[in-house]
Amino acid sequence: MFSLTVCDHIMIAHSFQGAEFGPAQKLHGATFVVEAEFRAAKLDHLQLLVDIGLAKVELRRVLDALDYSNLDDNPTFKGINTTTEHVAFHIHGLLAAACRNGSLGQGGRAVTGLKILLRESPNAWAAYEGPIA
Amino acid sequence: MFSLTVCDHIMIAHSFQGAEFGPAQKLHGATFVVEAEFRAAKLDHLQLLVDIGLAKVELRRVLDALDYSNLDDNPTFKGINTTTEHVAFHIHGLLAAACRNGSLGQGGRAVTGLKILLRESPNAWAAYEGPIA
Amino acid sequence: MFSLTVCDHIMIAHSFQGAEFGPAQKLHGATFVVEAEFRAAKLDHLQLLVDIGLAKVELRRVLDALDYSNLDDNPTFKGINTTTEHVAFHIHGLLAAACRNGSLGQGGRAVTGLKILLRESPNAWAAYEGPIA
Amino acid sequence: MFSLTVCDHIMIAHSFQGAEFGPAQKLHGATFVVEAEFRAAKLDHLQLLVDIGLAKVELRRVLDALDYSNLDDNPTFKGINTTTEHVAFHIHGLLAAACRNGSLGQGGRAVTGLKILLRESPNAWAAYEGPIA
Amino acid sequence: MFSLTVCDHIMIAHSFQGAEFGPAQKLHGATFVVEAEFRAAKLDHLQLLVDIGLAKVELRRVLDALDYSNLDDNPTFKGINTTTEHVAFHIHGLLAAACRNGSLGQGGRAVTGLKILLRESPNAWAAYEGPIA
Amino acid sequence: MFSLTVCDHIMIAHSFQGAEFGPAQKLHGATFVVEAEFRAAKLDHLQLLVDIGLAKVELRRVLDALDYSNLDDNPTFKGINTTTEHVAFHIHGLLAAACRNGSLGQGGRAVTGLKILLRESPNAWAAYEGPIA
Repeated sequence: MFSLTVCDHIMIAHSFQGAEFGPAQKLHGATFVVEAEFRAAKLDHLQLLVDIGLAKVELRRVLDALDYSNLDDNPTFKGINTTTEHVAFHIHGLLAAACRNGSLGQGGRAVTGLKILLRESPNAWAAYEGPIA
Repeated sequence: MFSLTVCDHIMIAHSFQGAEFGPAQKLHGATFVVEAEFRAAKLDHLQLLVDIGLAKVELRRVLDALDYSNLDDNPTFKGINTTTEHVAFHIHGLLAAACRNGSLGQGGRAVTGLKILLRESPNAWAAYEGPIA
Repeated sequence: MFSLTVCDHIMIAHSFQGAEFGPAQKLHGATFVVEAEFRAAKLDHLQLLVDIGLAKVELRRVLDALDYSNLDDNPTFKGINTTTEHVAFHIHGLLAAACRNGSLGQGGRAVTGLKILLRESPNAWAAYEGPIA
Repeated sequence: MFSLTVCDHIMIAHSFQGAEFGPAQKLHGATFVVEAEFRAAKLDHLQLLVDIGLAKVELRRVLDALDYSNLDDNPTFKGINTTTEHVAFHIHGLLAAACRNGSLGQGGRAVTGLKILLRESPNAWAAYEGPIA
Repeated sequence: MFSLTVCDHIMIAHSFQGAEFGPAQKLHGATFVVEAEFRAAKLDHLQLLVDIGLAKVELRRVLDALDYSNLDDNPTFKGINTTTEHVAFHIHGLLAAACRNGSLGQGGRAVTGLKILLRESPNAWAAYEGPIA
Repeated sequence: MFSLTVCDHIMIAHSFQGAEFGPAQKLHGATFVVEAEFRAAKLDHLQLLVDIGLAKVELRRVLDALDYSNLDDNPTFKGINTTTEHVAFHIHGLLAAACRNGSLGQGGRAVTGLKILLRESPNAWAAYEGPIA
């Protein structure tokens, strides 16, 4: 199995609902370093998994909708805690769709798995991985 | 599949038995940076895999028994080389038990897999991963 | 010249005033990884620059006033943009005072210089350094 | 499942064939940081997965054939783009053979999986993983 | 003293002249991670040292002339070994000029010192720092 | 001012004398990642500060006397706490001597400053820097 990973980051504000979150119930923020790992069993005739340029552009496009914003104000997340786990899941859905719809070229259509990992601090990170149906 | 990882470290002394270890047969030491990755197929209603606060506390509790000590003097490791691989396995057992016994809350009971990775230097690390029965 | 550095982090929300900030005028956030570097020409009789335990406690105490908060709501920063540069300067003032007032022990009183560096992302960081009068 | 990873790096020149590569069609270069992850279900009686000394020596031996060279001039890669993905695959083949032929000792013969990850920049990396038949 | 650092990278080929370079006399390459640290004694009224957006654009502009190229073919470096030290010095000159000529705005004109650090591998890096006359 | 830094690491055991050290009074250990930064105002005719190969060899030679050992048993440190600060100072003295005595070649003789930084964990490091008389 091959994988190719590209990396970018966003800077967001948010708060959490639920006593379990303690001080994180207050409005605060995070730099999320986002790693997008594309997986496929084979490379194409150019020895590429996906076009790394397209991968970076699509990741940035997905992140632009979140970057420099307060996630509490984003209708997409209404009533949903934007935990690191959930934001990883959210980005996974959008990048998986980009693979399927051809935005990542033929290589993207051949991607069989995708893992999105978000680092919230040097001591904590979360990820969602799943197949691309 | 979701994952959440928390990170901490310990500073220990130890030595190894066996000519294969070369100079590491002498008493020496290591800073082990410890990454504990919890895995589950679903998040809870708060969008949490496990309570990150509880995860950090339990990891620290497990590490406190090893931190600032000479592993050669620890009865737990009598006759067993405390290689990075084995210490990862040892920590895995204790954190898996914490998941099962409820110390990590309901989220911990729902954890299905756990990976413990120990970095011993910038150039070498080892891990043990396994299901939580 | 000796130096000792301890590291911690905070997760904050904020926004900026001024067209120069572009999208960062909107409420967003950051994980600031904070490095506090203490400098002195000599070590004490125990070969310590400052007690590393006290240094971590004092850094945490200073950061607790900022962690998990919206800096826009903090009276300390009223009318002042909380750029990475300025937050470094702010933390410098508080840790320098802790050195002078004895909170960092005799070692802290002997500190002659202090540098506070804040990493806002893998690609950008800022610092303030100055003597401790 | 246990894993042990050792890390080294190479500094190579190369160019790519295919309009998809854009400016990377020109002769350029890369520092590839190479991580070799060995996997096995059990440790030996010394609590070792593989002898870490042998692992480092074999990885270095494999890398010496590439280090400080122009991959475009290497007959092994004639007509094949030396993408990060492909170089990972190439190194995988050679290290897997080293496991099978005993160069990594008994531990190496017991290795069941191998992952080679190459970091080409802070923002991009690629890997190949597969079983050792 | 304040500082602000922005980070980017280039991927270049080159070779060295001189027996002292050993195997690095052959054509090879490197990923240079480039850190540009701007220094000034004061921040402006917005609490900025330099506009971080302009700083990233100017650093990229300077790096574009080197990225994805063979430095051996660059007339600028004719007869000069493009060691990590020298490339740092070269970039310093161009970014210092950008500060002086206003490309970095008023903040850039107020910069008094500049340090350019290039990481060539996890184990080696070089820098040039100097005042901006 | 130019600088060139090379990096290596050691794995040592030690304990500290003095109630101030708390649990670190017990025998424990550390991986010290060691960064040696050489400084000079000029490069030589090859555009080198020091021969990086010689720098790595000399740093390794100095570290070999400490690596895989219990510093408590080393007569050099009799009655002296081997804090990170002090070990940095100790290594500084030996590498500075190597510069002066020609072990680092003509480039080494031209070095005017040397900084030794030791990382003991992701959250703490210490350094000693000084001129080479």
